[in-house]
Amino acid sequence: MNKRSMGPGTLLAPLPVVLVGTTGETEHDGVSKVIQNAMTAAWTGIVNSEPAMLSVSIQPPRLTHRFVMETGEFSINVPTGKIAPQVDLCGVRSGRDLDKTAACHFTPVRLEGLSVTAGIAECPLILACRVHEVRRLGSHDLFIAKIVNVLADDDLFDGDTLNLENRDLLSYMHGNYYSQGERIGFFGYSVAKQNVLKRRLPKAHWPKNQTLAL
Amino acid sequence: MNKRSMGPGTLLAPLPVVLVGTTGETEHDGVSKVIQNAMTAAWTGIVNSEPAMLSVSIQPPRLTHRFVMETGEFSINVPTGKIAPQVDLCGVRSGRDLDKTAACHFTPVRLEGLSVTAGIAECPLILACRVHEVRRLGSHDLFIAKIVNVLADDDLFDGDTLNLENRDLLSYMHGNYYSQGERIGFFGYSVAKQNVLKRRLPKAHWPKNQTLAL
Repeated sequence: MNKRSMGPGTLLAPLPVVLVGTTGETEHDGVSKVIQNAMTAAWTGIVNSEPAMLSVSIQPPRLTHRFVMETGEFSINVPTGKIAPQVDLCGVRSGRDLDKTAACHFTPVRLEGLSVTAGIAECPLILACRVHEVRRLGSHDLFIAKIVNVLADDDLFDGDTLNLENRDLLSYMHGNYYSQGERIGFFGYSVAKQNVLKRRLPKAHWPKNQTLAL
Repeated sequence: MNKRSMGPGTLLAPLPVVLVGTTGETEHDGVSKVIQNAMTAAWTGIVNSEPAMLSVSIQPPRLTHRFVMETGEFSINVPTGKIAPQVDLCGVRSGRDLDKTAACHFTPVRLEGLSVTAGIAECPLILACRVHEVRRLGSHDLFIAKIVNVLADDDLFDGDTLNLENRDLLSYMHGNYYSQGERIGFFGYSVAKQNVLKRRLPKAHWPKNQTLAL
C-alpha cells in the first residue's frame, strides 16, 4: 500500500473520549459560585499498573487546568453514546461561561478518595484520580495521576465479571465520535487452543493461525 | 444507576491498540542477530500538540524497553482488524524467542526522521517517534516522545482529506479487541446549525438539543 508522508502530527486513533470532572470557583454573570465542571478530553490513557495511574493532557488556559492545580484531583468519567451530544458540548463550551453540569443534566456522585471533586452518575465508569506529577510539554501540561478508586455501573457486570461488550462506550478519531464495534478477539486468542476459542469466541473470529509462522 | 466501588485499577476504555516497532540485537538459537521487533501496547496516547508528542508505557523487562533505551526511537503502528491475530501474537510472544516480523509476515518500511527503526507496512498509520523523556512510574516506564513524522495509507484519504470512517481500526477494552463502530457525530455537532448537520451527519445521529439547557 502506498503511503503519504504527512510530517509531524497528532494522528493516533482510536482514542478514548472522557469527561474530566473538576471543581472550583468561577464567576457566572458577575456572581462567584462553586461549580462541578466537566471538560471533554481524548488525550488520556493508562500509564502504569502498580500503582494504577493514568495521564491526561490539558492546555494551561483551560478552566479545568486551574481547578486541577488548585485541588490536586479530578475524575475521569467514561461516557456512552446515549450522552454523546453532552460529551461534545463539554468540549466546545467553557465552564467560565456555562454551568455544564446543570446544562447537561449531570448528576454528581461523591467519590471516595477525593476531597471535593465529584463524578458524573450518567457515565458507567468513573475513575477517581489524585495528581502525582505535572510535566510541561509545550501546548499542554501532562497530568500523571494515581487512580485511587474506580466506580462501575452494576449493569457492566455479568455476575462478578466486568464485561464491556455492547456497553455503548464511545471512541474518538480524527475529529469524530464513534460507537463501539464488535468484539473480535481476546488477549491471547492467536495462540489459544480450539476448546478455548470454542468457549470464548464466535467461530467467525477464530484466527487463521496458518498465516502465522509459529 | 447503582455503582460498585472496585478500588484502584487501570480500567479505562476504549484504548488504542498499536504495535511498537523497535530495532536492536538479540540472540535466537545461540546466534546473535539484529531484528525489527514489534510489541503490542494499549497504554499509549497523544500528550501534546505543539510539538506533536505521544506517550507509551513499557515495562522495563521487555525487549522493546531495551531497544528504545538503546536507540532513542520507536515507531507506533496502528493496525486494522485484518491483522488482529498478528497484533495479539505480538503481545503474547517476546522478540527474545521469536522473530515476530518474520512470523507475522510484516514488511518493514523505512521511516524518515528515524535512524534505524522501521515501520510496519501492513499498518495504515505509522508514527515515527523520538524519545523526549522517560519517567519511572513503578511497574512501567513512561516514554514521552516527539512524533517526527506520520505516514498514512493512500486509501485513508478522500481526495486530500484524511477520513478514518470504515477503515477497520482496532480498539482494546478490558482484555478484548473490538472492531470499529459507526460514526455518530463530529466535534462541535452538539451546537452545529441544521444546514451543517444536514451536510455532515446522517439525521439518525442529529443531537436532540432540547435535552441540553443551552
